[in-house]
Amino acid sequence: MEENAGSILQNGGALFLPGLSVDCVIFGFHDNQLKVLLLKMRHAEKWALPGGFIYKEEEVEHAAVRVLQSRTGLSNIFLRQFHTFGELSRTDKLLNKKLLVSSGLQADENHWFLQRFVTVGYYALVNFSGAVPRPDATSEACAWWDLQEVPPLNLDHGDILQKALETLRKQLSDQPVGYSLLPEKFTMPELQRLYETILGKQLDRRNFQRRMLGYGILKRLEERRSGGAHKAPYLYCFDTDRYQDALLNGLQQKW
Amino acid sequence: MEENAGSILQNGGALFLPGLSVDCVIFGFHDNQLKVLLLKMRHAEKWALPGGFIYKEEEVEHAAVRVLQSRTGLSNIFLRQFHTFGELSRTDKLLNKKLLVSSGLQADENHWFLQRFVTVGYYALVNFSGAVPRPDATSEACAWWDLQEVPPLNLDHGDILQKALETLRKQLSDQPVGYSLLPEKFTMPELQRLYETILGKQLDRRNFQRRMLGYGILKRLEERRSGGAHKAPYLYCFDTDRYQDALLNGLQQKW
Repeated sequence: MEENAGSILQNGGALFLPGLSVDCVIFGFHDNQLKVLLLKMRHAEKWALPGGFIYKEEEVEHAAVRVLQSRTGLSNIFLRQFHTFGELSRTDKLLNKKLLVSSGLQADENHWFLQRFVTVGYYALVNFSGAVPRPDATSEACAWWDLQEVPPLNLDHGDILQKALETLRKQLSDQPVGYSLLPEKFTMPELQRLYETILGKQLDRRNFQRRMLGYGILKRLEERRSGGAHKAPYLYCFDTDRYQDALLNGLQQKW
Repeated sequence: MEENAGSILQNGGALFLPGLSVDCVIFGFHDNQLKVLLLKMRHAEKWALPGGFIYKEEEVEHAAVRVLQSRTGLSNIFLRQFHTFGELSRTDKLLNKKLLVSSGLQADENHWFLQRFVTVGYYALVNFSGAVPRPDATSEACAWWDLQEVPPLNLDHGDILQKALETLRKQLSDQPVGYSLLPEKFTMPELQRLYETILGKQLDRRNFQRRMLGYGILKRLEERRSGGAHKAPYLYCFDTDRYQDALLNGLQQKW
């Protein structure tokens, strides 16, 4: 939604698929913290997930890519659809009316923006340092939040975030996720900290290292991280071919 | 869609969420074969997945439950949303026009039934012997098909079926699935055959047995299956509490 908010609200009925939206849970990793990108819409008291509508001639997945790109400036993002939210209670007509009125539009009962919306949820893993958060046309702020400090969110966005996190945790046993969240070179403690942050619990150092190396997706580099007081730890990077293969075929023991 | 097809097509615009549907991949297991329930719509050359529309005041998931119930006569079905299909190419206006015209309706370009549809996919695991396949108002037949013999399907329904199967295969390593697909009492070879059928490959008998017993979700009964020429095999049933726990918390090694 790069256009003017008023014109979107006015013409949305002609532009977009009716009653359908996408919402994106955008995760980043920084300073050993899992972060999520949130927006503050004008006239809303609460923060919200970045989302948008789907053009009548646009694939639903492309709408999610477009939202991500316009909120973060990033393309080629790791993006996965995880769930569609179709509960009756999830539309906030009152807030949407406020947005219409404040844009000088008539809040007619039949207005496309006041109908019930079903939303398709996507989660994304992005390179925190490469992302430049940008508010959309209806928002006054866009910022990274520590996962532990996320305030109460708009509508069912808290549930959507929770479901995305559950999905990510489940997929962590089956798929590698570090590539999109870590810098190119990283130490084993940094990788472990990423997993611990996503899972919300501490892991045993030796078991973690054994398991990660067992997957065969890491390459140990000749360089070490220097500068610390302790013995300098080795740097690793991902073996891209094996990483891609694990993404497709899974990490776990199969039947 | 238990009402008359013509009245649904005529009044659907007022009744249903626009441009959204549900499609259900209903799996059953019988005679050592994985089956899927398909419909043959009138005026369509191809078979299709059972599906339906969502009433304006109905949860999306409830629409899936309703479709399942009306096609199989079963309630309390194991049902999971697995993916939403939002490709541009997936609506067949020509077929839908035929359906309108044959119902004596005008195939106006703005007709709700001729718009682009996004569909939310659900898969279900049902007790084959308890299900009584019933066609819906727009169909002339409803029947179980062996998975290996499924004919080319309508629209993108072949892709939807494939994605459901992939999801089921992935979840098989993480979740127990036998409860909804097997009779109350079963032998280890019968359970193994179910897994082999879903995975489409043979499994080693001893590894399979060790792994299944290791999950702790089976109870061995005193009875044995009698009547065969070989040594009568033990009968098992699921330990319901542990099975439910495994459904919630997974079977696999976690981090």
